[in-house]
Amino acid sequence: MNARLYFDWNATAPLRPETRAAVLAALSVTGNPSSVHAEGRAARRLIEDAREQVAALVGAQPRNVVFTSGGTEANVLALTPPSDPAAATRAKLLVSMVEHTSVLAGGRFPASAVEQLPVTISGELDLSVLERRLARLAAPFVVSVMVANNETGVVQPVARAAELVHKAGGILHVDAVQGPGRISCNISDLRADFLTISAHKIGGPKGVGALIRRDADVPFPTPLVTGGGQERRSRAGTENVPGIAGFGAAAAATARNFASEAPRLRALRERLDNALKANSAPGLVVFGADAPRLPNTTLFAVPGVRAETAVIAFDLEGVAVSSGAACSSGKVQPSHVLRAMGVPPRLARGAVRVSFGPSTSEADIDCFVCAWIKVSGALLKDGSAVAA
Amino acid sequence: MNARLYFDWNATAPLRPETRAAVLAALSVTGNPSSVHAEGRAARRLIEDAREQVAALVGAQPRNVVFTSGGTEANVLALTPPSDPAAATRAKLLVSMVEHTSVLAGGRFPASAVEQLPVTISGELDLSVLERRLARLAAPFVVSVMVANNETGVVQPVARAAELVHKAGGILHVDAVQGPGRISCNISDLRADFLTISAHKIGGPKGVGALIRRDADVPFPTPLVTGGGQERRSRAGTENVPGIAGFGAAAAATARNFASEAPRLRALRERLDNALKANSAPGLVVFGADAPRLPNTTLFAVPGVRAETAVIAFDLEGVAVSSGAACSSGKVQPSHVLRAMGVPPRLARGAVRVSFGPSTSEADIDCFVCAWIKVSGALLKDGSAVAA
Repeated sequence: MNARLYFDWNATAPLRPETRAAVLAALSVTGNPSSVHAEGRAARRLIEDAREQVAALVGAQPRNVVFTSGGTEANVLALTPPSDPAAATRAKLLVSMVEHTSVLAGGRFPASAVEQLPVTISGELDLSVLERRLARLAAPFVVSVMVANNETGVVQPVARAAELVHKAGGILHVDAVQGPGRISCNISDLRADFLTISAHKIGGPKGVGALIRRDADVPFPTPLVTGGGQERRSRAGTENVPGIAGFGAAAAATARNFASEAPRLRALRERLDNALKANSAPGLVVFGADAPRLPNTTLFAVPGVRAETAVIAFDLEGVAVSSGAACSSGKVQPSHVLRAMGVPPRLARGAVRVSFGPSTSEADIDCFVCAWIKVSGALLKDGSAVAA
Repeated sequence: MNARLYFDWNATAPLRPETRAAVLAALSVTGNPSSVHAEGRAARRLIEDAREQVAALVGAQPRNVVFTSGGTEANVLALTPPSDPAAATRAKLLVSMVEHTSVLAGGRFPASAVEQLPVTISGELDLSVLERRLARLAAPFVVSVMVANNETGVVQPVARAAELVHKAGGILHVDAVQGPGRISCNISDLRADFLTISAHKIGGPKGVGALIRRDADVPFPTPLVTGGGQERRSRAGTENVPGIAGFGAAAAATARNFASEAPRLRALRERLDNALKANSAPGLVVFGADAPRLPNTTLFAVPGVRAETAVIAFDLEGVAVSSGAACSSGKVQPSHVLRAMGVPPRLARGAVRVSFGPSTSEADIDCFVCAWIKVSGALLKDGSAVAA
């Protein structure tokens, strides 16, 4: 796949060289981290070193990091009613309509306790609606708002939401899976009570993530995976030592490169957006263009081009892009994110997501634009493409 | 650690070379398994190949395998009341007193619904007690019995328990984490409805396991990790592709070597047990010696030697052993397994577990015995060791 162009970083980022080295080294450490012998202590050290690296990425204390099997598990762990049964019965969960499916599903809240909050046409959480809803909502409740949307890249007003949520006595969970390395994700600045991050979005291995709390005064939710004392009793089971070590290395590299990488990505995205505008049929839409967006993400559509067809045509040209979230790639219905933004289904069905990262060059962007000219030209000529 | 002797395989087995190669190859596959492009399809293929390898290890169909983050998660997933609320209220969970802590904790059953079943003094599930209990138990219920105990190595009468459980209309879950490569774990022969296995006990990576069902007619339990369609909607979240690929490779190697490896391990254990008897103070006890045991496990004690002290003394001699399950290594109380077998606390506190595997040689066993002579000699002379 050397000659291929990979533009699906929001689904999975390519592994960083630092990650590979850390995973490899960890694979050679045989011990179980709960064992007291030298082999066990060596495994324990790998985990605790990684915990420091992951904590540092979001400005948290290491003891406030719980490793999980990924972002989805961390979200489910976070979205948990209070352990007190009476409080649990009354508890509510409010999530934005553009959250990842693992948040929309509501974690361990019953479906009847979950409410969705609308977004504006530019894709941002509608803070005025949130404020009105909170005015007539009694604690306990949890609000979950992502740091930036995985499809559009639209950055959410998390810190302002936090202010409203805290004033009303609620807890704010932030799915920050798409944030690190792209925008600042300091947990104190975001004012999030809980933050979810995932290794494979920042060049770490698939299968590992973390739930991080801002303050040790906020208790971690009731464990989801139970029956062992690991992760300070918040997550049972022998730890994924190679995955966690790789996560730590990826977190350290992400933090180290952020200051130089974020503006570089932004320049690449401007180059991409301008070239798309210059080389597309009339009616090109970049979704969320009026909102602050991740520097590495452009979701766009041209009337008459269907995304599923375009993704396959791109793939045949050696270019990996997405028609939305990987998690829902099997589905044919248009994105819930674009629906929430009021995008007509006909246009939404054409949405192609281009996402990139640290190893993407200007030349890669230019090659993508060439592929787009070829693909869109062919599809717009081909009647089947306009069948939307 | 080249010069060290590793005798803690029941906590974590050393990585197989096949596993390392598979993990490495999988780390280079960038795609998200849910993505439709070539990179995504390559990741999907790794998972489905591994699913075949893992299924073959226990004689199951690939479609009946759900990958999890490890044995603990698979156990919690399996131990789930029925989804119908009325049935859930009545549902019971029966577990043997010697199960792993992740089973003893009861999964998603409320504590009040969990009952413990006694074992005989040789450490085997007492089938007569099970039979009497089932005679006055109405479905729905789940019974969970391990294939072999992680501390003593005692093999449990799973197939006979299955007969009783099925006759009474219940479901049998079997924690088979310690079985593969040591004893036959064919899911049909065991007659288990659900089987848990874990990669890192068979030379695969830490952080991956599977829940496997015997028959597609038995529905998988309500998902634990929710909010995505992965694993045929039984386990949400981007898959741990390198971990799963490594698990597959380890499963294939384990299955391939089983016929020659199991008798070799058994001969090593006989050599070990005989040498321990010949070179120990009077009163040496090998726990579960009267029961069928895993060919790779010996749990023993000598009055006057405390296990915590012995484990540290062995570690200083370059030998990794355990004082019981890694998961409870932090605890000071004597093993719940030995308590269930009626072993006096004073003797139980001296239990040292020696477990080994494919890369263990006769010379390694002999070196262990030399270390034991040195360690036990010093500890029995040293007054502090007898403080039990």
